[in-house]
Amino acid sequence: MMKEMKSRLAKKTKIALIGFGTVGQGVCEILLSKENELKSKYGFEASIVAISDVMKGTVYCADGLDIQQCLDLAKAGDNLENYAGDCEKGWDSLRTIRETNADIVCELAFTNVKTGEPAITHCKAAFENGKHIVTSNKGPAALQYAALQKLAEKNNVKFMIEGTVMSGTPILNLANGPLAGCTITAIKGILNGTCNYMLCEMEKGMAYDDVLDKAQELGYAEADPTGDVEGFDAMAKVIILANVLMDNPISAADVDRVGIAKITPEMMTEAKNENARWKLISTIEKRGNEVKASVKPEKLSLTHPLASIMGATNALTFTSDLLGDVTIVGAGAGKIETGYSILTDILAIHREK
Amino acid sequence: MMKEMKSRLAKKTKIALIGFGTVGQGVCEILLSKENELKSKYGFEASIVAISDVMKGTVYCADGLDIQQCLDLAKAGDNLENYAGDCEKGWDSLRTIRETNADIVCELAFTNVKTGEPAITHCKAAFENGKHIVTSNKGPAALQYAALQKLAEKNNVKFMIEGTVMSGTPILNLANGPLAGCTITAIKGILNGTCNYMLCEMEKGMAYDDVLDKAQELGYAEADPTGDVEGFDAMAKVIILANVLMDNPISAADVDRVGIAKITPEMMTEAKNENARWKLISTIEKRGNEVKASVKPEKLSLTHPLASIMGATNALTFTSDLLGDVTIVGAGAGKIETGYSILTDILAIHREK
Repeated sequence: MMKEMKSRLAKKTKIALIGFGTVGQGVCEILLSKENELKSKYGFEASIVAISDVMKGTVYCADGLDIQQCLDLAKAGDNLENYAGDCEKGWDSLRTIRETNADIVCELAFTNVKTGEPAITHCKAAFENGKHIVTSNKGPAALQYAALQKLAEKNNVKFMIEGTVMSGTPILNLANGPLAGCTITAIKGILNGTCNYMLCEMEKGMAYDDVLDKAQELGYAEADPTGDVEGFDAMAKVIILANVLMDNPISAADVDRVGIAKITPEMMTEAKNENARWKLISTIEKRGNEVKASVKPEKLSLTHPLASIMGATNALTFTSDLLGDVTIVGAGAGKIETGYSILTDILAIHREK
Repeated sequence: MMKEMKSRLAKKTKIALIGFGTVGQGVCEILLSKENELKSKYGFEASIVAISDVMKGTVYCADGLDIQQCLDLAKAGDNLENYAGDCEKGWDSLRTIRETNADIVCELAFTNVKTGEPAITHCKAAFENGKHIVTSNKGPAALQYAALQKLAEKNNVKFMIEGTVMSGTPILNLANGPLAGCTITAIKGILNGTCNYMLCEMEKGMAYDDVLDKAQELGYAEADPTGDVEGFDAMAKVIILANVLMDNPISAADVDRVGIAKITPEMMTEAKNENARWKLISTIEKRGNEVKASVKPEKLSLTHPLASIMGATNALTFTSDLLGDVTIVGAGAGKIETGYSILTDILAIHREK
């Protein structure tokens, strides 16, 4: 009986979640609702063995946790350490990464965007202990992609980051998979949904400050909106795309960054009269061995494919040697969409097993 | 020395091309120009061991052909059997499929769209002889997808058909790879570039017959344009998408098909006045266990994402449970683009080795 249980667990992909906020809970909801489908279609079975959250506490059970119970605790605002069942409690995130039996660590902890911590330390600890990282945190890939990727390779594990750009809408796995035979020479896109929403509202006649208030009310913009409106969020995505897809490491200093705060109602009217529309456009171009990158407002003709992307939607055009332009349009945020980015990376690791 | 040569060949993916027209030559050009890149990035090395074309003849060399020489012969309108070098000549396509040492058969022969022959027979022969099929011919997948897929699985080989829909723009490998964790509930798209081009020209004021003449001059439409303008080409793609991605086999009788021939200048003007635009839209919707499929002209509001797809460009929106709408816009035809569809399927097979 014990043997049978063990061999059943051995077949399962064992997952530790570091961080149990919106995305962590989204992943759990998807894994619960898709359990039978993923097993029958891909022979994929997951077991969440540990959840560690700096606010909500830590539970670890090597045989797998009751996911529904963990979700119920989180929803009730209860601490995970009230989990009923035979398990370890009270561990910190690093001990959880190092000492649990997880194969994959989903790094979803609240992270300082300037230092990338604690996510970078979490990634290093996982790699050094032979565990894959799947993360939607932009910090590690934007600040230390090359070093982390090297450490992952050295330890024969994967550093998967689909969720860092356009949430679960496939960008990195598309470029590294179905587009792998192409050389990508340029990338151009709308990578910040908050700014795109705000520009669309301003086009309807609202002033910048009023639109910002509305975006904050709706939860699109944060209390400190700088990350979005000054282009820092899009810049981090540009750095990630350049590092992952252009074989050419760049950092913040290499990105020409201008936000949307200086767009006036007069500029909006002028654009309208010219059959054009302001968009915050992220661009990466490979010129010989150099990469030129920018995030800035551009006045696009209405016939430009990116001009029709409205609301919080994101879009990205890959220009390549063999396919010309391929454009992907999809969600750029959301609990289930970002949760899916974690699932798609876990499935990619499963396929390579 | 012989041993070394043999082990080097063993590592290479050995390919037979059945058909050496535009697409076959496109694949060869890509393999030549990308040889070093594909080797250094993916450890992928290809050897074209055989080319068989009903008009241009057959050459087979188990150690690999000189691809450039084959391309030169084709360009000069010369028969492949004038190939200079130690090789077999005069085989037919079936003997080439069955008796050469190819791992992968690229089925690119001119095929009757109504019977799917000789492509279907070629696919069966390949599977029965333990060889993968990569094809951009719509016939096999549109007419006999389930049976062929079953035969491929039984023989532990792959039936790869990325090029059947939107040429090399990733659709099927995207859905089966990065979107694999989603359940696709609806697909809507512009899948015939010729019709989209013609509708765009008609919008500028040209009458249907004049536009058709122009499309034929430009090589977009064939001498017998029925396949495009009556929606048969898009219908075949709809059947393929339903069969591959919706687990629900359908056939031509299940598709509500209307072409663009009855669109008048008056209808164009009316649409313009309504801020709308006519498009030939392909739709597949899953409703419970049923699939509803159609190809027909639809008057889309200019704010609809597919309304802005102009010229010969194709586009497709996947609606899924977890990601909402994901839209892909890209080329739907072209020598290099369709050649790339063959390469991407070959690389997918290589990755699974």
